[in-house]
Amino acid sequence: MKKIRAAIVGYGNIGHFVLEALQVAPDFEIAGVVRRRVTDIPAELSAYRVVSSLDELSDVDVAILCTPTREVEHYAVKALAKGIRTVDSFDIHTQIGDLRQTLDAKAKEYNSVAIISAGWDPGTDSVVRALMEVCAPKGITYTNFGPGMSMGHTVAVKAIAGVKAALSMTIPLGTGIHRRMVYIELEEGHKFEDVARAIKSDDYFAHDETHVIQVESVDALKDMGHGVNMVRKGVSGKTQNQRFEFDMSINNPALTAQILVGTARAAMLQRPGCYTLIEIPIIDLLYGDRDALVRRLV
Amino acid sequence: MKKIRAAIVGYGNIGHFVLEALQVAPDFEIAGVVRRRVTDIPAELSAYRVVSSLDELSDVDVAILCTPTREVEHYAVKALAKGIRTVDSFDIHTQIGDLRQTLDAKAKEYNSVAIISAGWDPGTDSVVRALMEVCAPKGITYTNFGPGMSMGHTVAVKAIAGVKAALSMTIPLGTGIHRRMVYIELEEGHKFEDVARAIKSDDYFAHDETHVIQVESVDALKDMGHGVNMVRKGVSGKTQNQRFEFDMSINNPALTAQILVGTARAAMLQRPGCYTLIEIPIIDLLYGDRDALVRRLV
Repeated sequence: MKKIRAAIVGYGNIGHFVLEALQVAPDFEIAGVVRRRVTDIPAELSAYRVVSSLDELSDVDVAILCTPTREVEHYAVKALAKGIRTVDSFDIHTQIGDLRQTLDAKAKEYNSVAIISAGWDPGTDSVVRALMEVCAPKGITYTNFGPGMSMGHTVAVKAIAGVKAALSMTIPLGTGIHRRMVYIELEEGHKFEDVARAIKSDDYFAHDETHVIQVESVDALKDMGHGVNMVRKGVSGKTQNQRFEFDMSINNPALTAQILVGTARAAMLQRPGCYTLIEIPIIDLLYGDRDALVRRLV
Repeated sequence: MKKIRAAIVGYGNIGHFVLEALQVAPDFEIAGVVRRRVTDIPAELSAYRVVSSLDELSDVDVAILCTPTREVEHYAVKALAKGIRTVDSFDIHTQIGDLRQTLDAKAKEYNSVAIISAGWDPGTDSVVRALMEVCAPKGITYTNFGPGMSMGHTVAVKAIAGVKAALSMTIPLGTGIHRRMVYIELEEGHKFEDVARAIKSDDYFAHDETHVIQVESVDALKDMGHGVNMVRKGVSGKTQNQRFEFDMSINNPALTAQILVGTARAAMLQRPGCYTLIEIPIIDLLYGDRDALVRRLV
């Protein structure tokens, strides 16, 4: 069996876990890692090609984009133009529709495939949300995140003057309402009260219950665990009070990475264009004989 | 917009709820109901054509098969041969793979589409099971059913000599182990102990903890509520202890019917062949503009 040759583009947290997921996937081989720094290579990459551009790798079937979310479009367009399939976990919910249209045109132009926003939310959670609406078209779904670290909120806190280090935890209060617990190390010469007030009035926090707590070491609090709870109560046909709930408690980048690898597998099977996970058959993400998968899972 | 013309084939519990789901679906019209008895028509069918064969209905896009599960293949083959798409909730897990192959050949021969086993289990639960394996390829999934009435087990009890009426409830004990609570009305001239022993030694019950209870009226106990709890603990890449859980508490035939109607919508979009729900994009089951659905749900 010819293996799928995947390139890892970007080597932060998610890139690291994508490497591990590819190492244990029976149908993949690692074409190489694209990274800004090609010196100072971590030990676990010593067996692989580490390069500064996708151009330096040969016969890449699919590029797994593990860059910051705002750089996804740039790297996806470059890869698609070379006929290389791309998958990513682009997570700015309000921009997914536009990214899908942009990459759909590029993918079709170059006869390639892009699957976007293929982490857990957006991603597998989106499939669960869609499935709950299949089951009960009328009703309300609440997506409750956490407890876990919010990357976006943490970055927003770090940008505020007087903050040396920060961690913003998302705490679910139910019905899609969240509390923000913000832990900070204070820069010398700043007053805690001023910094706390600035954080609470930032647009990221102004609409949620937010608590700011000063700590000695933010690093000592960091844990990559996260979770989600999704609930829907709705109507099937004319029948009320149908109830659905999905929960998970997971290592955040490890789950994102695993879903990206499954999605890379699925990218091999789609016709040219750009897709989200609700637009492709779930079986395409799984390794193994199709008939055997149907017999075991359906 | 041209509406999808659906025929309801079989009018028991599920057929009744399919009628309701079609009545509230904005994109469907009801071509008619195929039923053994075309006299003694229930009031809610008075506005529709009730016929004894699919041949008597015109321009049917899709037949929603609500017959007993063992008659699904017969009716599906007949419909497909007329170029009519079929959907069903065939639920004998061990025979799904074979039915899929049989109907795939028929569907391709007549340029039509069949989507099988599209209830909640098999069906939407199968999608959740597949999705959990996407998230954590290594690990164990447990599907716990109930509390709720098992149709198959109830039919098995009714076949035993001395049983006048029966209800077999499935009680989840966790890790995929179930207790069977069997309520029976006794036929005159039979001893309860003999009948209870016969039930417990029947192949449907011999492997589970089974309790048989004699009651005055089985009908007084009947409730169409059911539920499922699915849990998976597994490994994403090399990261252990990833946990996933799906729960629902639902009216059983109402949910099956709603999923069948979504599946009938999806049948309009597939290329000729036979599919299960894990093999088609979930978005195809939803009503509405595709781009808007992606922007709202992903």
